[in-house]
Amino acid sequence: MINQVGRDIPDVYLKDGVEPFQGIYYRDDYEYTKAAPTVHAYVKPNGDKLVDSIHDVLIKSGLKDGMTISFHHHLRDGDFVVNLVMKEIHKLGIKNLTVCASSLGRAHNYLVPCIEDGTVTGISTSGIRDEIGEVISAGKLKHPAIIRSHGGRARAIEDGSVKIDVAFIGASTSDAYGNASGKGGQSDTGVLSYADGDAKYADKVVIITDKIVAAPNFPASIKGVDVDYVVKVDSIGDASKIASGALRLTKDTRELNMAKEVAKCMYHSGYFKNGFTFQTGAGGSSLATTSFLKAYMAKDNIKCGWAMGGITEPIVNLFNEGFVNKVLDDQAFDLAAVASAHTKGHFEISASQYANPFNKGAFVNQLNFVILGALEVDTAFNVNVVQGSNGVLRGAPGGHPDTAAGADVSIIVAPLIRSRMPTVRDRVTSVTTPGESIDIVVTDYGVAVNPKRQDLLKAFADTDIPLKTIEELRDLAYQYAGKPEPVEFDDQVVALVEYRDGTIIDVIRKPKRLNYSQKALDKF
Amino acid sequence: MINQVGRDIPDVYLKDGVEPFQGIYYRDDYEYTKAAPTVHAYVKPNGDKLVDSIHDVLIKSGLKDGMTISFHHHLRDGDFVVNLVMKEIHKLGIKNLTVCASSLGRAHNYLVPCIEDGTVTGISTSGIRDEIGEVISAGKLKHPAIIRSHGGRARAIEDGSVKIDVAFIGASTSDAYGNASGKGGQSDTGVLSYADGDAKYADKVVIITDKIVAAPNFPASIKGVDVDYVVKVDSIGDASKIASGALRLTKDTRELNMAKEVAKCMYHSGYFKNGFTFQTGAGGSSLATTSFLKAYMAKDNIKCGWAMGGITEPIVNLFNEGFVNKVLDDQAFDLAAVASAHTKGHFEISASQYANPFNKGAFVNQLNFVILGALEVDTAFNVNVVQGSNGVLRGAPGGHPDTAAGADVSIIVAPLIRSRMPTVRDRVTSVTTPGESIDIVVTDYGVAVNPKRQDLLKAFADTDIPLKTIEELRDLAYQYAGKPEPVEFDDQVVALVEYRDGTIIDVIRKPKRLNYSQKALDKF
Repeated sequence: MINQVGRDIPDVYLKDGVEPFQGIYYRDDYEYTKAAPTVHAYVKPNGDKLVDSIHDVLIKSGLKDGMTISFHHHLRDGDFVVNLVMKEIHKLGIKNLTVCASSLGRAHNYLVPCIEDGTVTGISTSGIRDEIGEVISAGKLKHPAIIRSHGGRARAIEDGSVKIDVAFIGASTSDAYGNASGKGGQSDTGVLSYADGDAKYADKVVIITDKIVAAPNFPASIKGVDVDYVVKVDSIGDASKIASGALRLTKDTRELNMAKEVAKCMYHSGYFKNGFTFQTGAGGSSLATTSFLKAYMAKDNIKCGWAMGGITEPIVNLFNEGFVNKVLDDQAFDLAAVASAHTKGHFEISASQYANPFNKGAFVNQLNFVILGALEVDTAFNVNVVQGSNGVLRGAPGGHPDTAAGADVSIIVAPLIRSRMPTVRDRVTSVTTPGESIDIVVTDYGVAVNPKRQDLLKAFADTDIPLKTIEELRDLAYQYAGKPEPVEFDDQVVALVEYRDGTIIDVIRKPKRLNYSQKALDKF
Repeated sequence: MINQVGRDIPDVYLKDGVEPFQGIYYRDDYEYTKAAPTVHAYVKPNGDKLVDSIHDVLIKSGLKDGMTISFHHHLRDGDFVVNLVMKEIHKLGIKNLTVCASSLGRAHNYLVPCIEDGTVTGISTSGIRDEIGEVISAGKLKHPAIIRSHGGRARAIEDGSVKIDVAFIGASTSDAYGNASGKGGQSDTGVLSYADGDAKYADKVVIITDKIVAAPNFPASIKGVDVDYVVKVDSIGDASKIASGALRLTKDTRELNMAKEVAKCMYHSGYFKNGFTFQTGAGGSSLATTSFLKAYMAKDNIKCGWAMGGITEPIVNLFNEGFVNKVLDDQAFDLAAVASAHTKGHFEISASQYANPFNKGAFVNQLNFVILGALEVDTAFNVNVVQGSNGVLRGAPGGHPDTAAGADVSIIVAPLIRSRMPTVRDRVTSVTTPGESIDIVVTDYGVAVNPKRQDLLKAFADTDIPLKTIEELRDLAYQYAGKPEPVEFDDQVVALVEYRDGTIIDVIRKPKRLNYSQKALDKF
């Protein structure tokens, strides 16, 4: 069936209530009964919940073939938890597991041989890149991976689309009763936002920590009343990699120029008022926007009510300098964000509070602006942030579709041409975020406004914003880099791109020309 | 059927899975699937949730005959919310409602005519006293009231025994999106612990506040993602009565002597160690215990890890003086507690975290000591805190059965004779807390230890604690006050006393000699 963004979704994936994408607000006011875990009452005061090892907790948890387990990614590239758990699972010979991760990256590469040998046969994740992107692109995972945004994952857990049997939650501190936090210890991640739903909706909840503290470990991101077991390991992560790629402000002139245009668009949009709210990503231009924004704020004596998102040092700086009143944090991208998470006015929010479209109003709904990146944008303003132009999985929706749908003004910033491939094109390789939710595309060759936003076009009319149509940007891109050759794909579907509301916005197939060689377990 | 504490529970109340009480740990490890609300997705960024009036929100919420509504009692005797809502409901002519309140008292007397005219036909509550105790004792409520402990209510909501259709949550501050708190504003209650489950498990959630603040109103006890509507009213409560009966330390010699023995029992129990945990009630002797405890702590250089409960000024003082490291707060009993709730180290906990026997370990399970009051204690150590010796409902289980079951050492402190009625007796008028969970009874005529606690008897052997058997205490009481005449009851059951795990521990019948005169609505 052809969905609303023109993508053909095979009927085999449209069953059990799964529908094709039908517009960003298709499921507004959708009624459903929330999911609920099956749990055991701890009536007796039995003492603490400490278990000696991951092996032992796997046995106690009752984990068996065919179950679904979950992980969060706040430890980012420094995460040890996924591999520690998967190695013990592998030793036990448990097969046919589904991994529901908030995101996956290079720290989780032990999943690769687990996919190859059928230990893991299903995956849902936001991030799908590096070796995991390759193995899934190569069709080695038994079932198509489900790619979910952060809000979409929170929704899927809360509406019962995903049922987590055992959640494994890495936490930098925990007490013996499972009151756990991302704060303190040697692996401080600031927040544990993505694990909130795992703790509340999984049948069994395991805290894995390298620091046990006195009870109560308050404030606790994860509450002991939801936790079955606590395991202490030597180390849950490599702190130096948790904040890897510590973000530096770009000095690239092209990026700075784009950032300047982004800030200018914000300034002239009609939404730049005292108390305005915004989120910006971690890309070079997105980050650089903050300094231009700051100049506008200082000039007009305007303060930001709150900034949200994956938090970075430039946002922390604006906060510390008083330009941002409050910070709503679902993920720390660097050490400055981790440190700031301990300060007054910087608040942890759960993935559901951040972006879930099915609760009673996520914070994305209150965003005035979001600044987002793109691998590709098409002339219908559809954005791809998941799949490389060569067809290989290499990205993550993150909060992209969520914030784009919620914000008054969603701004894509991307170079017109990247690695000699046109970013703006007739058709994106796959759709992550529908054009319906994208308002402005800022490139180094001009700014395109979605024609549905006549208000913005009018607001920008008398400015020096270099307006172009999206077709003009495409033509420029094709002129400089040539019209891209279509990538050839096999029939095999390797991943489903789920829109935040659970509908299918696209399917991703195995690229024909993909060299993939089996990974030996002993490598890991 | 005769239950485990010897009470005859009519079979008519034992259906749909409801069982008679069978021991305090009968349902340990009980497996169940949690309840879940039916909600509507707020996908569209629709703006705020403000509704003009309680009338309008009743219409919007879809409230209709036969539904269940809920209230919390943090505003205590100063609460306006229950009466404001019930008056509008009454005007609309909605009938046959069940009110699930965390507690009810004199501030909620508009319920009396609502009970009489069938607007309200079912009630579950902890507190059942004053005019509401009378009207229910008189058999005016169509269905027997269900008396629940604080932990029992949290359990009933979470396990689906109670399904709340519309929750009304008074909050001293809220933003327009429903992020609500008991802190700030003119009706500061410190915490909103009992409303936590209402917000998470009700289908529709209404915040009623007298102060709208800028979003996000963080930290938020009630999260906007769970809230449908926000109504601003002129005043949600009379601040001077919120902390009414501001607790004064007793100067009554008898109470002081009992308090001294309580502290002595704690000191010699074997559990008085650095980091110990305790909860004490708001009665004169319970409160006075803190000063004797402080002397022991100073003498042995021992600190309390955390104190929990309804928080009072004496606990706040110990906290401020460094004798108590942390405070876990589910209810502020006075203004000192409200003020302290704003300070570091003083944490709000939900009713479920506090005392729910069916989650994965409530904090009551970690209590070393609890000090509790009693209206009556029998020779099996069963305690009644709900029903007067004349048969009229006049109390509240509160956290009594919860803390008694969870604490290592549960201590009852009560005068042997009260208003010329023996407190210690052969048989309590009704059982609120089973003797199985009571370890020590301290009276002004001696201290009885439950024979099942041979460890305590041994620990107290070489002390000057005036040990007596419970039968000796009863004999003394009967000697001084005479053996109490049994109260005569009609057959009509007016209330069920539900044990914290959902089993029925007792039924309460209409006293034969009860003068009750109908209340005219225009009085209210």
